[in-house]
Amino acid sequence: MAEFDAKTLRYDANGLIPCIAQEAATGEVLMLAWMNAEAVECTLETGRVTYWSRSRGAFWVKGESSGHVQELVELRLDCDRDCLLALVRQTGPACHTNRRVCFYTAVRDGQEVELMSPE
Amino acid sequence: MAEFDAKTLRYDANGLIPCIAQEAATGEVLMLAWMNAEAVECTLETGRVTYWSRSRGAFWVKGESSGHVQELVELRLDCDRDCLLALVRQTGPACHTNRRVCFYTAVRDGQEVELMSPE
Repeated sequence: MAEFDAKTLRYDANGLIPCIAQEAATGEVLMLAWMNAEAVECTLETGRVTYWSRSRGAFWVKGESSGHVQELVELRLDCDRDCLLALVRQTGPACHTNRRVCFYTAVRDGQEVELMSPE
Repeated sequence: MAEFDAKTLRYDANGLIPCIAQEAATGEVLMLAWMNAEAVECTLETGRVTYWSRSRGAFWVKGESSGHVQELVELRLDCDRDCLLALVRQTGPACHTNRRVCFYTAVRDGQEVELMSPE
């Protein structure tokens, strides 16, 4: 067992690490977004999952404007320390399209198939 | 419904897109690795999940050397078309450390806690 230090994760050239959000209760993969070291620390300190928005270039406390917050259940890291898995309790839909998850499009027989509608 | 074209996904500056592998039967998140457009096409054509190894700079047919193959059940894409989710049937451990999944380290009370041992 070692003390966790967000600075020891392996970030990309932009100082970011991908974080997969998974609903703790169902195992459903909700989304993938990015964190920098401060976002990782903030997520652990507040228990509210916080990403770095690459499009806005700003911290993004998930659900801050929509109310669709992610309460952290447990943060995990992978063998290479270059990817995170956040087990969460998601309030409302995780996707900005108002669908439950972002991965609502499947590839079946060479076609894109929509698996769920906005809530 | 639209025809799927791997070239219409959004790749990063290195031509890569992250792909989350999830065990179809259990929902367990196994690993995250990267694909380029050719790896996406190859995965769909062969039904064998194929990544692009950033460290080796080469295609990486998962399990080709270890036997720990990932049989594709379904490929999904996210709302932004910049992340993939592969539902798979994993043979053997997914992680190169011989653990079932790569996300075997949790952060609990500021400490890194190992959740599973090599098989």
